[in-house]
Amino acid sequence: MPYVNIKVTREGVTAKQKAELIGGVTDLLVRVLDKSPATTFVVIDEVALEDWGIGGVPVEQYRREAEDRLRHIGQLVEPITED
Amino acid sequence: MPYVNIKVTREGVTAKQKAELIGGVTDLLVRVLDKSPATTFVVIDEVALEDWGIGGVPVEQYRREAEDRLRHIGQLVEPITED
Amino acid sequence: MPYVNIKVTREGVTAKQKAELIGGVTDLLVRVLDKSPATTFVVIDEVALEDWGIGGVPVEQYRREAEDRLRHIGQLVEPITED
Amino acid sequence: MPYVNIKVTREGVTAKQKAELIGGVTDLLVRVLDKSPATTFVVIDEVALEDWGIGGVPVEQYRREAEDRLRHIGQLVEPITED
Amino acid sequence: MPYVNIKVTREGVTAKQKAELIGGVTDLLVRVLDKSPATTFVVIDEVALEDWGIGGVPVEQYRREAEDRLRHIGQLVEPITED
Amino acid sequence: MPYVNIKVTREGVTAKQKAELIGGVTDLLVRVLDKSPATTFVVIDEVALEDWGIGGVPVEQYRREAEDRLRHIGQLVEPITED
Repeated sequence: MPYVNIKVTREGVTAKQKAELIGGVTDLLVRVLDKSPATTFVVIDEVALEDWGIGGVPVEQYRREAEDRLRHIGQLVEPITED
Repeated sequence: MPYVNIKVTREGVTAKQKAELIGGVTDLLVRVLDKSPATTFVVIDEVALEDWGIGGVPVEQYRREAEDRLRHIGQLVEPITED
Repeated sequence: MPYVNIKVTREGVTAKQKAELIGGVTDLLVRVLDKSPATTFVVIDEVALEDWGIGGVPVEQYRREAEDRLRHIGQLVEPITED
Repeated sequence: MPYVNIKVTREGVTAKQKAELIGGVTDLLVRVLDKSPATTFVVIDEVALEDWGIGGVPVEQYRREAEDRLRHIGQLVEPITED
Repeated sequence: MPYVNIKVTREGVTAKQKAELIGGVTDLLVRVLDKSPATTFVVIDEVALEDWGIGGVPVEQYRREAEDRLRHIGQLVEPITED
Repeated sequence: MPYVNIKVTREGVTAKQKAELIGGVTDLLVRVLDKSPATTFVVIDEVALEDWGIGGVPVEQYRREAEDRLRHIGQLVEPITED
């Protein structure tokens, strides 16, 4: 009788996608551990972007900074790799 | 100092009912484990129906299917039990 | 950056099965929501049988009672279905 | 289909007490919200004393300090209340 | 790769304060346990006042009653401490 | 009255480090949100390495693979950066 809690950022997850998550994770527990779907609960939490932190900052700031780092690495690599 | 988290589907639970849950579960912990109410936290989460899965499907679909199964069993049993 | 918590009863789940759960649920989040595996956490909790309740009783008692009910239904149905 | 998680400090809770918690909280959800016991999960977590903090310190230190404060208040009140 | 969940009552916590919580708790895990910020998740939940119980009652009722007790203690102490 | 749950991998966290986490996160909630320490709970969970997944694999495998990737990048960069 498993209980699964899935937390994702709130960014337009549809009811159809939620149903796919519920079905997929239940199938997984049936396949791997032979659990009964009838006693498998799945609870999905959508978390507002300002409520989710990673790298010590809220997730939106984290993504902006990650993009900046990627761009910077690209600029460092470019002079080396171009002919 | 217990911490209790109660998750239920969001279906019109009133503030009065929440207060009853909070009081009831705190009394239970006092009675069974002699805990102090002053350091007993209860947090209630109401979960949207589309965010709760059971039987591999969202809860509303699960309930519809369960009703169908009950009706089907009724139809199977009826010819046997009627005079 | 999803976070998934899977709670199952402690009944000899192997490290290999846990790795399958971790891989399967991460694949699911990639496929359904296009999430990055690098920022997908999965935490598995094994819960002792005496710590898991369903139907108002600990899970072992629940299973015994469910078997008894099934056997009883079988005995009720048998005289009807036999020739 | 409620899910209830009860966290208490690990201090010799017996299997019988756990069964009382499971039964009591399930009865409460039946009585207050008319929930079905068959789809009510209760999961109990016992937390080691060093893993539980309150008042900014681990719970054992918190209890010692609370006793000291009570004793000190007693000493302050005694000269006032004695004949 | 720590995961931290912070639950507070919903009482006007700003995005700036949330960012401070995320930064502060991540710094703490770096300092005390040498964890990597890149794999440290922080999820903040704001809980409605009617969904949080303490002392066996919802938090607003608890605060009113605590103020009443303090006022009553003040009235008891006053005749003793005044000249 | 905040409730904080800190999950870290079980890798020899000492009671002293746990006390530092409890103190640090309580101080943070006092400083940022003016919360009372007396009603601030902190619960620490140590999670076995095989129970924690990231990148679709258990954490130990993830770390080995991350080291391999770093070594490989080092080998790619070396011929470019050496004189």
